[in-house]
Amino acid sequence: MTDKLNNLSQTSPNSNKWMIKNGAFSVQDGDKAVIRGYMVIEDDLISYIGEEAPANVEGIPVIDGTHLFFMPGLVNTHGHAAMSLLRGYGDDLALQVWLQEKMWPMEAKFTSSDVYWGTSLSVVEMLKGGTTTFLDMYDHMDQVGKVVEQSGMRASLMRGAIGLCSEELQKHKLAEAIAFAKDWNGKADGRITTMLSPHAPYTCPPAFFEKFVQAAHDLDLPMHTHMSETKAEVEQNVQDYGLRPVAHLEKMGMFTRPSLVAHGVHLNDEEIDILASHHVGVSHNPGSNLKLASGVARVIELMRAGVKVSLGTDGAASNNNLDMFEEMRLAALIHKGVSGDPTAVPAAEALRMGTIYGAESLFLDRVGVLAPGMKADMIALNTDQAHFLPHSDLISHAVYSASAKDVEHVWVDGKQIVKHGACLTLDEERIRREAQAAFEGLLSR
Amino acid sequence: MTDKLNNLSQTSPNSNKWMIKNGAFSVQDGDKAVIRGYMVIEDDLISYIGEEAPANVEGIPVIDGTHLFFMPGLVNTHGHAAMSLLRGYGDDLALQVWLQEKMWPMEAKFTSSDVYWGTSLSVVEMLKGGTTTFLDMYDHMDQVGKVVEQSGMRASLMRGAIGLCSEELQKHKLAEAIAFAKDWNGKADGRITTMLSPHAPYTCPPAFFEKFVQAAHDLDLPMHTHMSETKAEVEQNVQDYGLRPVAHLEKMGMFTRPSLVAHGVHLNDEEIDILASHHVGVSHNPGSNLKLASGVARVIELMRAGVKVSLGTDGAASNNNLDMFEEMRLAALIHKGVSGDPTAVPAAEALRMGTIYGAESLFLDRVGVLAPGMKADMIALNTDQAHFLPHSDLISHAVYSASAKDVEHVWVDGKQIVKHGACLTLDEERIRREAQAAFEGLLSR
Repeated sequence: MTDKLNNLSQTSPNSNKWMIKNGAFSVQDGDKAVIRGYMVIEDDLISYIGEEAPANVEGIPVIDGTHLFFMPGLVNTHGHAAMSLLRGYGDDLALQVWLQEKMWPMEAKFTSSDVYWGTSLSVVEMLKGGTTTFLDMYDHMDQVGKVVEQSGMRASLMRGAIGLCSEELQKHKLAEAIAFAKDWNGKADGRITTMLSPHAPYTCPPAFFEKFVQAAHDLDLPMHTHMSETKAEVEQNVQDYGLRPVAHLEKMGMFTRPSLVAHGVHLNDEEIDILASHHVGVSHNPGSNLKLASGVARVIELMRAGVKVSLGTDGAASNNNLDMFEEMRLAALIHKGVSGDPTAVPAAEALRMGTIYGAESLFLDRVGVLAPGMKADMIALNTDQAHFLPHSDLISHAVYSASAKDVEHVWVDGKQIVKHGACLTLDEERIRREAQAAFEGLLSR
Repeated sequence: MTDKLNNLSQTSPNSNKWMIKNGAFSVQDGDKAVIRGYMVIEDDLISYIGEEAPANVEGIPVIDGTHLFFMPGLVNTHGHAAMSLLRGYGDDLALQVWLQEKMWPMEAKFTSSDVYWGTSLSVVEMLKGGTTTFLDMYDHMDQVGKVVEQSGMRASLMRGAIGLCSEELQKHKLAEAIAFAKDWNGKADGRITTMLSPHAPYTCPPAFFEKFVQAAHDLDLPMHTHMSETKAEVEQNVQDYGLRPVAHLEKMGMFTRPSLVAHGVHLNDEEIDILASHHVGVSHNPGSNLKLASGVARVIELMRAGVKVSLGTDGAASNNNLDMFEEMRLAALIHKGVSGDPTAVPAAEALRMGTIYGAESLFLDRVGVLAPGMKADMIALNTDQAHFLPHSDLISHAVYSASAKDVEHVWVDGKQIVKHGACLTLDEERIRREAQAAFEGLLSR
């Protein structure tokens, strides 16, 4: 593999058209899931994919795609990147012990510098693992925006606000969320988009939550929140508001905005119908839901009802990696095992959950599929490895056999970000060192 | 990492004592799960692990273990290595369609050459992914033995016999199983051990099954079989023999031999007690059980009853990789998610399932843990990567964040088999080519 892509680096700075030959491309297009042949990229867009050699490509740089499988970049629709600093800090604990004794005391100490290095660590892991777009809901979001800008990655960012505090602090958080959403929407050459994101119905009093809905209307932005992750949280919602979370969010007006909810583990049939009728997306986080013992989301029923289900890793403190291949595989495996139906969530559907459904759930309309006119956000897997053989079905191999480390190259907006497994835009070595130091700093103060 | 281990290659052929310094070692020893310091290896055995520099090591080769996490090699207690040739050939199908229309017609065409190359492909994948010992139940077992011998890997091998055939063919299969078990036990410098293995109670009439029990007594060997993988199979057993599979196997005398059963998905409380009372091990295959929608084994209850539960990948046609890190992670995740108990199967326990419990389940008494006097079957993970940071808890990272491709080095019997991710004993490139050709050959005839 070593020198296949070297001619890319010889591309002159003015050249904005290049081509891949001998590649296998995941086009997820009806009967023809994989096309073997050529792809042409012009600036940030794909302009051609086909078996036949394209016209008008004389003299443009050519990459040999032999043994590479090109897929759309993966889209991670729920997470808290800076929490990678707490990876492995408190596993296998009851949820409340984990939150109250481990996560919250440490997170309360997070400075903007911690968020910067924690997010950088996650961005390196995600990019190298083939994720080209991620959603991030956290605090100190300017730092997150900065990392995204530097990295070349695409992201949907939002200040996640918990409203269990004084009215004054609530006001401050709301103002911060609005300012961030305004200032950063469309930044980084359009790679950053923003949402409004009250943390969860159980952490935001209705009056506070409704202010976010109003702000989303004012700014014409979509909304995101945690919803129905645990059974206890659903029961609490009924006790506090006389409604289950879906009806509660509907009542507060959230679903009058384009919306994405994270988790959606504990849903009844009626709630699934409400989500479907409002076109609310669900970010399914199988790894995190299993590890925190939240349960198994009703993904088969959600998809049957027409709800768009995408995939998220959640934070690395409850996963504990940010490998979207693993989330695709978990989605394909657990719903078969738990339902008893081996045809549930087939490989191609799991791949769509990790790519196009994710892009649509983040309201990105030119991302998530390899086709002419779409953004050149793509990854190349090295298929010249034992676990990719025989070359019977590359879509199956990508979902059932691949992992983050099979990713050889990554492009976003047509620009190469990862080459032969190394990140070109960020100083990986420094990020590892600073992230370790940040963790030690959190422990010591 | 690149040149850390280069001094190993300078070891003189007569040198049989070498040392690792600056390493982190998984010792799984009560409070002290990880020791940072030194390890000394003499011939095939570990002779020292400790924080203090060892005595009498002047002039011996020294490896710098900085950024490496040394663990016992992983032990895969159930599989059919040659089935890697059918990876991705028929996914997401109902079990009977998958077996009858996809697997069986192709497997009927397998030649000894197919088994040789398919097994080689699996052995390359397993070794590079940190598995140092595997169980293999298949046909053409001489070929499997040959691959194991060449590879330097450790294995428990057996001719799996299906008895749904003429009495003459039954006789032939039994004779083959006995001859293989006799001839190969202790081969490859003792790295190969053998078992007797009727395929399953639902594929072996009692008279045929009992001949294997008798042979196991005669040869003083342990036994292995598939058991209670699907609900339908359990119901069929009750219909055919008036007994559920555990009582049926007990009645046929299998448990009078040291025994390991694969799957054990559908077990009632009484059956769990019977397995515990006979010290029968269960090879839990979470990936395969989920993918084939067989269900979720009652691992929490099995372990609570004192049954030894180890991990297996099953064949690559139903997994679809042979990554034992993934099996450890699945075991740690799904039983939390399905039971609702986040403390179920903690990381250290999942690691034991993938190492020491596996070794004990294959009746290997000096394998599966890093300690003086134990075999130097070990692997080194590269921890200088984003998904291993911060270095909060290496055991947690190995289970919840690592994958096959984090394995940098592998040793079996003190001999290095994988170095910087490359297999030293087998011709990987040729194996990939031949495996692809074998698959194409199966398709074409």
